Amino acid sequence: MDSNMNHAVTDLLQTYSETGGINYLDAAATLPSRLAIEAACAELMSLMFPGFRSEALVSSDDLAETTRTRMRNLHARLKTEICRSLGKIPPDQATEEKAEEFLSVFLAELPSVRRVLWTDIDAAYEGDPAAKSYEEIILAYPSLEAIAIYRMAHLLYDKVPLIPRIMTEWAHSRTGIDIHPGAKIGPHFFIDHGTGVVIGETCEIGSRVKLYHSVTLGARSFQKDEHGKIKKGGKRHPTVEDDVTIYPNSTVLGGETVIGARSTIGGNVFLVQSVPPDSLVYYEEKQLRIVPKRKHKLATTRNEFLE
Amino acid sequence: MDSNMNHAVTDLLQTYSETGGINYLDAAATLPSRLAIEAACAELMSLMFPGFRSEALVSSDDLAETTRTRMRNLHARLKTEICRSLGKIPPDQATEEKAEEFLSVFLAELPSVRRVLWTDIDAAYEGDPAAKSYEEIILAYPSLEAIAIYRMAHLLYDKVPLIPRIMTEWAHSRTGIDIHPGAKIGPHFFIDHGTGVVIGETCEIGSRVKLYHSVTLGARSFQKDEHGKIKKGGKRHPTVEDDVTIYPNSTVLGGETVIGARSTIGGNVFLVQSVPPDSLVYYEEKQLRIVPKRKHKLATTRNEFLE
Amino acid sequence: MDSNMNHAVTDLLQTYSETGGINYLDAAATLPSRLAIEAACAELMSLMFPGFRSEALVSSDDLAETTRTRMRNLHARLKTEICRSLGKIPPDQATEEKAEEFLSVFLAELPSVRRVLWTDIDAAYEGDPAAKSYEEIILAYPSLEAIAIYRMAHLLYDKVPLIPRIMTEWAHSRTGIDIHPGAKIGPHFFIDHGTGVVIGETCEIGSRVKLYHSVTLGARSFQKDEHGKIKKGGKRHPTVEDDVTIYPNSTVLGGETVIGARSTIGGNVFLVQSVPPDSLVYYEEKQLRIVPKRKHKLATTRNEFLE
Repeated sequence: MDSNMNHAVTDLLQTYSETGGINYLDAAATLPSRLAIEAACAELMSLMFPGFRSEALVSSDDLAETTRTRMRNLHARLKTEICRSLGKIPPDQATEEKAEEFLSVFLAELPSVRRVLWTDIDAAYEGDPAAKSYEEIILAYPSLEAIAIYRMAHLLYDKVPLIPRIMTEWAHSRTGIDIHPGAKIGPHFFIDHGTGVVIGETCEIGSRVKLYHSVTLGARSFQKDEHGKIKKGGKRHPTVEDDVTIYPNSTVLGGETVIGARSTIGGNVFLVQSVPPDSLVYYEEKQLRIVPKRKHKLATTRNEFLE
Repeated sequence: MDSNMNHAVTDLLQTYSETGGINYLDAAATLPSRLAIEAACAELMSLMFPGFRSEALVSSDDLAETTRTRMRNLHARLKTEICRSLGKIPPDQATEEKAEEFLSVFLAELPSVRRVLWTDIDAAYEGDPAAKSYEEIILAYPSLEAIAIYRMAHLLYDKVPLIPRIMTEWAHSRTGIDIHPGAKIGPHFFIDHGTGVVIGETCEIGSRVKLYHSVTLGARSFQKDEHGKIKKGGKRHPTVEDDVTIYPNSTVLGGETVIGARSTIGGNVFLVQSVPPDSLVYYEEKQLRIVPKRKHKLATTRNEFLE
Repeated sequence: MDSNMNHAVTDLLQTYSETGGINYLDAAATLPSRLAIEAACAELMSLMFPGFRSEALVSSDDLAETTRTRMRNLHARLKTEICRSLGKIPPDQATEEKAEEFLSVFLAELPSVRRVLWTDIDAAYEGDPAAKSYEEIILAYPSLEAIAIYRMAHLLYDKVPLIPRIMTEWAHSRTGIDIHPGAKIGPHFFIDHGTGVVIGETCEIGSRVKLYHSVTLGARSFQKDEHGKIKKGGKRHPTVEDDVTIYPNSTVLGGETVIGARSTIGGNVFLVQSVPPDSLVYYEEKQLRIVPKRKHKLATTRNEFLE
């Protein structure tokens, strides 16, 4: 048995050197730590909503000191990860300075992010008849967590690779809402329920947009280069103008697709073209069949299935 | 750099006093703790399924003592959170008494909940050909976790705000199944796979109903008051009668929508009207196009996408 | 109050003996521990991607020793759970030998699994224009986690009950991707975004298949035996041939349904029949209505909803 296990270990070590090549572990050494980024996400949520997301109560007297401590911890933690993300561990002086610069801009932006998040909370309260209080939205709405993490990850998107993606995937895992940190999303944004929502990297979303769960703002077929390889980059995802509402399970695809302002997209729609402002989009109702069950006992393939 | 960070802290403290107003932290102090409620959810699952959901083995001899200890811990934990939820920390005598009353009713209902959950386990075993044993359902089916937490949260729904919503969102995060604690759901209920299911606050679901993943029982457009504000309350979600099955990705909306008993709703249907009992609902099959790929090389917008 | 709680405990103990019968706790004693299996899943991910999924850095020098230790820990942990899963705790000699045999085959297969996973990483890089690097895929793509756990769980599928199902449900909870360990899936497999994907127990999926989120490969109506009970077993889920792409929110059902090689299934399609190779499947575009909002103010049921 021990020899079996030794054999498995040797084989596995062999695959480490094969796949990913000899640089595999060197690459890993300069990767940001997923666990550290996830811990930073939790700290960021506590900074945004003190007293709501953490166990410990914060009294008004302690708030300044608590905030200062949190900010300092966050700074230390993120600095290490940004240096790693910039590819230098231990960091040289240039890397340290760059990390400091990114961080100070990031931390300075947090108050603005918090102000925008308050418009998102308003949007949830105004947009969901089931919302009983603002407290409920902060404590229990997954969309607020996903949007908050997205808004913070977006600040880092052009600066460091990987960290913003780990951040939004942390929220994705917890909420089922997959917002790419590259997307641009205006204020007063609400996603109801949320599970299954996908917002692609090059989406542009205006103000006061409301999405329901399982709405996809995705890419159409991809362009390939002369070697048949998929082309990276380019605007591949839709533009959604102000005051648009999209109902559950609808799929909107394509970088040239523009949903005009104030439009409403019904549920379960598959849309790969632009629609003008103030449009209503839905499927022709008469295609829906509502029939007594017995009559269809011996009917077509589709119906047999439904018996 | 330190001055940058100080600046960020000062700005953030400023937003705490702006948004949410001066009562922000006082409000937070009387909120139930999300972490404490989440721990209570895990304990409740262990009470419902001793030996299944927790690490430690429980022998028959110890079962009475273990159950008593768990119940006592749960009582202590929930009492604090109910007092906070009732808005008094530290609690006055009236608040303590009210919390005790709610708790004793809640704990006394747990055996009945457990009996109903056994009908849900039956429903899963009978409704899923992939289910190999009852043990598998208890150990591995996310729908059982979501339904169990919903049934317990529902007991608290009219009594304390926030706690039931935190409970169902805990399950939502783990399972992708979003059941509002206000919904009414009969026995022998099964959700297969589950990710993306949404069951709204005012749904009424009969006995022996079976849903597949990504089924939405949601609200239609909302009524607004004279100030253009959304009206809270009112029946906004569907009624689903006994023995109905709804296939994946279907969306059923509206408080006046009634799905008659024994009906089957096919997959990917968007339904905003009632259907009589014993109905079959699906889209006209001939709208589906199955065509050779080449012929459509230069065809319509929709088709180009699919190349 | 104490008497209320005692009453609740007594009632609950009563339901333990009622439901599940007298063997309930004995059954529980021989169940694999969900927590132990979940910890094993995390260890397996670290073995597959050293340096990526765990906090600690691994240097090239330590890699052999670290791998050996991880493998030894995994062996110890899984051996206990396999013995429990085989129904003997404490295990007799025959059970121990069987567990050893299963384990040594399992561990010996891990290097091959890792080689196949590298084709899945290639598929993600080639299939997603948003993927910036291989590192991003390993660190942040939920589909890789779901597929890796599925590929390892599949190795145990015919040998021990429950463990493989707990493994894939661990991944399901974290990623929203529900792959049954019984499914057969070829190399170079990619699921983009992933939330809401369901791949049933008897699916057969070829090479280079690409699914988007919320794609269902599920069962049609089930056959029942002479007692009206659902029949377990049998091929109930689709076959998807090589090089097929299925866009988001599409539902493909049925054990006799075959999606021919190189076909593309559009988004939001409901398909319960086979399609030949090189097909394109979508709904007739002209059924989609894009209309100005005002005109429909007083229109049909469906439209009223959308105002």
